[in-house]
Amino acid sequence: MGKSTTGNLQMNCELCTPENELLLWENGLCRVILVEDAHYPGFCRVIWNQHVKEMTDLTEDERQDFMQVVFAVESVVREVMHPDKINLASLGNMTPHLHWHVIPRYISDMHYPNPVWSSPQRAGMPAAPPDWRVNLARQLGQIQPHRKALSCHENSGSGQE
Amino acid sequence: MGKSTTGNLQMNCELCTPENELLLWENGLCRVILVEDAHYPGFCRVIWNQHVKEMTDLTEDERQDFMQVVFAVESVVREVMHPDKINLASLGNMTPHLHWHVIPRYISDMHYPNPVWSSPQRAGMPAAPPDWRVNLARQLGQIQPHRKALSCHENSGSGQE
Repeated sequence: MGKSTTGNLQMNCELCTPENELLLWENGLCRVILVEDAHYPGFCRVIWNQHVKEMTDLTEDERQDFMQVVFAVESVVREVMHPDKINLASLGNMTPHLHWHVIPRYISDMHYPNPVWSSPQRAGMPAAPPDWRVNLARQLGQIQPHRKALSCHENSGSGQE
Repeated sequence: MGKSTTGNLQMNCELCTPENELLLWENGLCRVILVEDAHYPGFCRVIWNQHVKEMTDLTEDERQDFMQVVFAVESVVREVMHPDKINLASLGNMTPHLHWHVIPRYISDMHYPNPVWSSPQRAGMPAAPPDWRVNLARQLGQIQPHRKALSCHENSGSGQE
């Protein structure tokens, strides 16, 4: 599928040269930040560290590792924020550097049930639980995403990419 | 993470009781349809067959299988549609039945660079290649997503879920 790419950092890319990010977790491949959006408490973003444009520009292993983190973040956000729904999106039209939005949605939030990029529906009062910041930071700090190993008898013999 | 769920079909869910879907590919777990949107040629949707709300309600295996299809669709859409950018999203606020939007975006389309759910920017003239329908249907019909096997020495011994 995609070719492996280390992806040069780009000077004019805000995700290559981040400023003032609220970093909650990172490994060598990607990082998790809290998006400070008054209307969307608990909105997290999972950012690939290298400058890569599309998910299918990554290798299969990189894609799996990346998505493991995204879903680990979704799990924590669900547990801490108790949202009515989770929204996931990888868009990148303005900033074509891979990043996943993980957004807890509430029936009472500003855009529900429409996506957060649509026109507002109401002033919005998301039902975030008390102490969500502390709990989110603590629980996200502890995530340990791993790529699931198949047992040997399932090995199709395709080997490692 | 999530518990395995077969997920009952829901009578009032439009993805459980689909009508007039343009089916391009399916297996036992999910299906790929073409979204007929005049402003977004090549817009595909990957729908989990059972009624499940969130990605982390699936087992890890189910998540990987689902995402393998999503990324296979992304690959084909890139090859056939030659978009300026791919947008991926799993939202489900109105229809909480897992489905991924795979949207080819063009600088000339109606909303670029904003998401497709935002306010229009222009009348829009997406630069879809000629014969895209035939090519998309043919190539999507041939996708063979598979879960990558790790070679035995990578097996952490966690076994199958």
